[in-house]
Amino acid sequence: MAEPESARPSSPADGRLEQQLRFLVEIDRLKTVRRRTLLTDRSRRENSAEHSWHIALMALLLSEYAQPGLDVTRVVSMLLVHDLVEIDAGDTFAYDVSGNASRVERERNAADRIFGLLPDDQHAMVRALWNEFEAGETPEARFAVAVDRLQPLLQNVMASGGTWRSHGVTMEQVLERMSPLAAACPTLWRYAEWAVTEVWVSGMVRDPEAEP
Amino acid sequence: MAEPESARPSSPADGRLEQQLRFLVEIDRLKTVRRRTLLTDRSRRENSAEHSWHIALMALLLSEYAQPGLDVTRVVSMLLVHDLVEIDAGDTFAYDVSGNASRVERERNAADRIFGLLPDDQHAMVRALWNEFEAGETPEARFAVAVDRLQPLLQNVMASGGTWRSHGVTMEQVLERMSPLAAACPTLWRYAEWAVTEVWVSGMVRDPEAEP
Repeated sequence: MAEPESARPSSPADGRLEQQLRFLVEIDRLKTVRRRTLLTDRSRRENSAEHSWHIALMALLLSEYAQPGLDVTRVVSMLLVHDLVEIDAGDTFAYDVSGNASRVERERNAADRIFGLLPDDQHAMVRALWNEFEAGETPEARFAVAVDRLQPLLQNVMASGGTWRSHGVTMEQVLERMSPLAAACPTLWRYAEWAVTEVWVSGMVRDPEAEP
Repeated sequence: MAEPESARPSSPADGRLEQQLRFLVEIDRLKTVRRRTLLTDRSRRENSAEHSWHIALMALLLSEYAQPGLDVTRVVSMLLVHDLVEIDAGDTFAYDVSGNASRVERERNAADRIFGLLPDDQHAMVRALWNEFEAGETPEARFAVAVDRLQPLLQNVMASGGTWRSHGVTMEQVLERMSPLAAACPTLWRYAEWAVTEVWVSGMVRDPEAEP
């Protein structure tokens, strides 16, 4: 039987910890934001939380291809928070022109609300990481963006070009999307360029809906 | 029309990059390993990849409660790789005694195969992170373990004690499971102890299968 509320001790979490825990519970919702990319086993579409895990680990393991002296911890931190705004703003398909026109405004409002759940100092810290990623100007941000672009390429190559052809994306659009790799990590860019071409030339790109 | 294979340039990825990419594609499978914990919206069970993302970010934001001077980057790196063995060994429910008896052997074999996909130096690096997490002896490992335990507590509290009662877990077992927090981060331990008690005392723990 439940005791009356007043007889029970109140939470020992002070204001600061309370804010942090509220934020950490809120971001659970990123696990329900679906991206266009399929898992490599093609069983379902990927969500933004598991995508963020994947690219954080990619950044750790591929940092040797980035500019020497890069702060890998900052890259990983950026990648862990870069998609949080999608909780409110949704995932915008990279090749959706009209969606991307309104994306900036929607994501800025989302950043205000979601990062604003945190204590002021951590709000500022996460906001700075997100702004840096979005601006894509520091070596860390450039590499973070590159890894964020490379991961769906790997998934698409493994899933036979899954979501590109079915959304009418061209090889030229994909190469343009991958272009940040050229400056950030030339070795990975050469691989990406080869893989994209290979997927198209080999006829691997096919429309999943047209399949038996 | 597809060109004959021989006429096309081969992958520019050398042996090392090839191994790294193969590993990064292989670990996509962690997204299909399901844990017992429900998402906070109770829509489905959580998978180990999104869980890993969640606790990596938790560690970043709650590190002030850990031992001062702790290497947060190492904690985050540990958390990003700590569940990879589940790709082969599956997730073992924390309160499953017989499953946990065979867990060590199964996970060691999994580590050999999965980490072994990487070049030797990175195999050794990931293995060291995993061994350190499993041993739970360094301040970094102790905090990583604490965060790994705290996250399902938060989820369970938000999902009304979801998966505990339905698997016959007692309050004492949960408190025992949370006990690594006591040394690693006393403030978070006080919160966990309060939250676990609160969930039971308030009658929030209920059997989801018995609900309408």
